Amino acid sequence: MACNLFAGLPMAPEAAERQETLLVWPGLRIERIVSSGQASPPGFWYEQADAEWVLLVSGEARLRFEDEAEARPLQAGDWLHIEPRRRHRVESTAAETPTVWLAVHYAQDRIRG
Amino acid sequence: MACNLFAGLPMAPEAAERQETLLVWPGLRIERIVSSGQASPPGFWYEQADAEWVLLVSGEARLRFEDEAEARPLQAGDWLHIEPRRRHRVESTAAETPTVWLAVHYAQDRIRG
Repeated sequence: MACNLFAGLPMAPEAAERQETLLVWPGLRIERIVSSGQASPPGFWYEQADAEWVLLVSGEARLRFEDEAEARPLQAGDWLHIEPRRRHRVESTAAETPTVWLAVHYAQDRIRG
Repeated sequence: MACNLFAGLPMAPEAAERQETLLVWPGLRIERIVSSGQASPPGFWYEQADAEWVLLVSGEARLRFEDEAEARPLQAGDWLHIEPRRRHRVESTAAETPTVWLAVHYAQDRIRG
């Protein structure tokens, strides 16, 4: 993949989200995720052992935390930190335009304090 | 600062680059840098103990590595990995529009393999 975050974006909605690793180091992983209208399956919650810092680079999405009553609408530039094991799901992503996420996953217990 | 990478961007060139830490964890630091026409001082080279993964989110810049003959032009979406101690400098950033960088610094020797 070319070293541009907007390279090779889908021109039309695809069957599945794309996920590409941009950098990996023990305890650290940076990835690009490209959504084109996907959402988490009904009833599905992410529950990750690692912490995640995530940026919505372009497009739109709604991210729901289980411990919050409503989904958070995310616009280009919005970022947030997801604590390990905090259950969350993607309620929706824009159908008309690709949604590009940059996710930085890091294992809090593998990094020396 | 609001949790949006484009929040509070300067409307006009400023005297100095802005640098804000978005996440810090031992061995890991994510920051936003906003340039408005600045460049590294003449003869100055960054030489960082940590590795850096950097994304040019918006704007334009020219990044020079000492071990390369020419500066690399960077556009929105371009990202690159800078090895520890690899000397580099910012030759220029766009004067007309803010240049937003997202930098992920990580200490390779502080993360357990």
